[in-house]
Amino acid sequence: MRSLYLTSAFAQVALGTIAPRNFIYIIPDGLSPASITVARAYEALMSGEATPEQPLFDPIFIDQLPVGNLRTHSADDMVTDSAAAGTALATGFKTNNYMIGVNPDEEPVGSVLEAAKMAGMKTGLVVTSVINHATPAAFSAHTLDRDGYPIIAAQQVGYSHPLHQNVDFLMGGGACYFRPQEDADSCREDDVDLLSHAESLGYHITEDRAGFDSLERGQGDVKLPILGLYNNSTHLAYEIDRQQQAEETREPSLTEMTEVALNALSKSTACKGRKCRSTPGYFIMIEASRIDHALHANDPVAHLHDVLEYQHLVEFVKDWIDQHPDTAMISVADHETGGLTLPDGWDPRPLSAASHSAAYIQAQIDAYAGNDTSAFFARQLASYGLGGEILNATTAASLAASEDFEADLVNVMNEETGLHFSTGGHTAVDVVLYAYAHGKMGEELRRDLAGNHDNTEIPRFIERYLRLDMDAVTRELREDLGWLE
Amino acid sequence: MRSLYLTSAFAQVALGTIAPRNFIYIIPDGLSPASITVARAYEALMSGEATPEQPLFDPIFIDQLPVGNLRTHSADDMVTDSAAAGTALATGFKTNNYMIGVNPDEEPVGSVLEAAKMAGMKTGLVVTSVINHATPAAFSAHTLDRDGYPIIAAQQVGYSHPLHQNVDFLMGGGACYFRPQEDADSCREDDVDLLSHAESLGYHITEDRAGFDSLERGQGDVKLPILGLYNNSTHLAYEIDRQQQAEETREPSLTEMTEVALNALSKSTACKGRKCRSTPGYFIMIEASRIDHALHANDPVAHLHDVLEYQHLVEFVKDWIDQHPDTAMISVADHETGGLTLPDGWDPRPLSAASHSAAYIQAQIDAYAGNDTSAFFARQLASYGLGGEILNATTAASLAASEDFEADLVNVMNEETGLHFSTGGHTAVDVVLYAYAHGKMGEELRRDLAGNHDNTEIPRFIERYLRLDMDAVTRELREDLGWLE
Repeated sequence: MRSLYLTSAFAQVALGTIAPRNFIYIIPDGLSPASITVARAYEALMSGEATPEQPLFDPIFIDQLPVGNLRTHSADDMVTDSAAAGTALATGFKTNNYMIGVNPDEEPVGSVLEAAKMAGMKTGLVVTSVINHATPAAFSAHTLDRDGYPIIAAQQVGYSHPLHQNVDFLMGGGACYFRPQEDADSCREDDVDLLSHAESLGYHITEDRAGFDSLERGQGDVKLPILGLYNNSTHLAYEIDRQQQAEETREPSLTEMTEVALNALSKSTACKGRKCRSTPGYFIMIEASRIDHALHANDPVAHLHDVLEYQHLVEFVKDWIDQHPDTAMISVADHETGGLTLPDGWDPRPLSAASHSAAYIQAQIDAYAGNDTSAFFARQLASYGLGGEILNATTAASLAASEDFEADLVNVMNEETGLHFSTGGHTAVDVVLYAYAHGKMGEELRRDLAGNHDNTEIPRFIERYLRLDMDAVTRELREDLGWLE
Repeated sequence: MRSLYLTSAFAQVALGTIAPRNFIYIIPDGLSPASITVARAYEALMSGEATPEQPLFDPIFIDQLPVGNLRTHSADDMVTDSAAAGTALATGFKTNNYMIGVNPDEEPVGSVLEAAKMAGMKTGLVVTSVINHATPAAFSAHTLDRDGYPIIAAQQVGYSHPLHQNVDFLMGGGACYFRPQEDADSCREDDVDLLSHAESLGYHITEDRAGFDSLERGQGDVKLPILGLYNNSTHLAYEIDRQQQAEETREPSLTEMTEVALNALSKSTACKGRKCRSTPGYFIMIEASRIDHALHANDPVAHLHDVLEYQHLVEFVKDWIDQHPDTAMISVADHETGGLTLPDGWDPRPLSAASHSAAYIQAQIDAYAGNDTSAFFARQLASYGLGGEILNATTAASLAASEDFEADLVNVMNEETGLHFSTGGHTAVDVVLYAYAHGKMGEELRRDLAGNHDNTEIPRFIERYLRLDMDAVTRELREDLGWLE
């Protein structure tokens, strides 16, 4: 069958003559092909230029960038999880669900980020999940079980990375995995203090808005390595909830974190003229992590705003590349989540009245100890976009009495908007592959990437594109396997 | 917004330096992005090389050909029907659902097939629906309502085409629309005899397997124009049902019809050496019509085999192009139908036991007048792949008593295979765009088509690619509007 490959066996294709110094890999976790249709329609309808009866839908930014699509199954399942999918996108090896940076035989395999580091490039991971979640883990760690969060964190900052690598720029949630167990805010069951370790390596560590802002303000001064953890025990907030946070304590957005990362990585790899040929650049993986969580929850409100933020991010990165044309970008989801489809009659406009995710509202309800239940529920439902027009008194009362409020809440909104989810898990449909570079390099990149590919082909493409050697990393990882757990 | 276009505004892109003489436009009606995943998994699993626990899914043929994707909404609906989608893909104009070859203001708009005819090219339409169904109609006729089947048929063979055009090669179902009302087999309510009209224009008309075989056998002799209608009052059979037809009366397959069409069109436009620069070639639209019907019915059996036949067709056309490298191909669905998704646990293998579509079985049941109901139902269920393992006696009895047997039958199979349909209608997700030409021309074609496009951009691309003039057709169509109904 392999002989049938026409465009997808990169090994057989002459690569573009121009290679980038820097590479930006954006993974919108769980993004559905239908997610883009929702975002496109929402923007057109809310701008007032279109109605469902006159759907004059202009393309949105990302519509410029598709080049093909990607197969996503894992080594042991027709529907992948994020660990196996992340490992495929990071290392070029299929593995079993739940495994991180190892093949199905439990042997470690090198990632494109590790190969970049080995080649002297600076490396970065920016995510909206905990920083040691499956996707960023697959680029920076090796462990048999994605739930080994403490193990992964320890490898990410070089405490126990088998090659003593540390990622130069890390941003996301999950500070608790970096604290020793004696700390009340710890999620570890050992005495390892990764924050102290990171400090000893010279990491500039920030854990709040003020710290993040100081990075932004101090572009000229702050140097790598940098560790930014803006939520202690869990993921960063859904974008819709983040926007409602108090300004002085608001978590940074994915695009804000990316801007800081690109400035820091770019500055630390700066070069001039001919020296740039021999000065290594940077590699960064940016994950729009929470699209996946919103789709798992079948929450159309959380989904919409995390997708819009992803669009915003991609547009920001495109502008960055136009100003730094020695940089290339690929963006592709690791799999589809939720089985989202848009049958006749769908209309995303009711989503515009929402200011919070269903998960946020559920948390408010769980924490509510007041007496004015009726007014409290009315406020909560309104913050999910469910006003009087949508929600008559009967439904509100029945929701208030629900045993699974969050699930019932999203169902009301999904019925109202006509968005249809077929599952709370992942699905097997191909995901859309996007790519961009400036000018002639972009033309060649898009030509070389056109077509349908297996997910394992993408890191192999980047490897050749950046003249890296993932196999050399794999060999070093296997010299002594005592560390693997 | 238009300034954002980077790859999809063909008007701003330098076209390839090499232009084809001939163009093949393949429309798999309603094909879902998930359809390809189903076909890919099915082929791998049935070959024995893969299991759901070791899904080593090689790419299938069409995986070589994606270049981007397409937006599909119509002028008056966020979810298009096949009339508006066909009009967009044929003419480059958005129109309202139900309209054929006219804009929303009810003004006729020229199609790329009509422009090809005007330029002296030979033209063809090969479909598995009735030949005057929405998609082929949009290329060859103009009417305010897609249900105006008699009007459409009359335009297709030049009886009442406003520019006196007739399509040179027509194949599909629906002979009844070509017979005058006095004929018992007529679907017309007038005395127009389109078969006699076609004969007077020199059409070679065949209506059965023997007639079709004579075309194949007589490649050297049979000349255009050709009209082949292999089902009187309705669509050609689903591929799975067609395969069970008696050999001597079996309807031709989509690929068989395409082979005859390409041979006839190619022969009638033959040229040698320099003369080829001034000898017009051919344009053909081939529709895998019944994928849409299978998805409307949520019938996973009928869907699978019509998708496999579409794959077979695309592979045949690719081989044809390699032997006739002055030919290019685009294939794209007009919209998605059924809202097909593939959640965790899906497995298409139970489909392999089926030999008939649910619609076929329903027809058998409707016609059954015998007494041995139990044995009869057992046979019918087995022919849908529902053997003892899947179907216990209770389910069989409950199915036998069902008021909507066909719908309940497909539900059992969808539960068994884990395929999930969200609707019996169409959805709004983008469809995948495929393209192929040989060698350097192919490289340029794929480069020029990369990205996300509005469906209206495709015929405009073909127009420029073939140096046609659709606006000239539109102007002529509007010189006198008395004919439009």
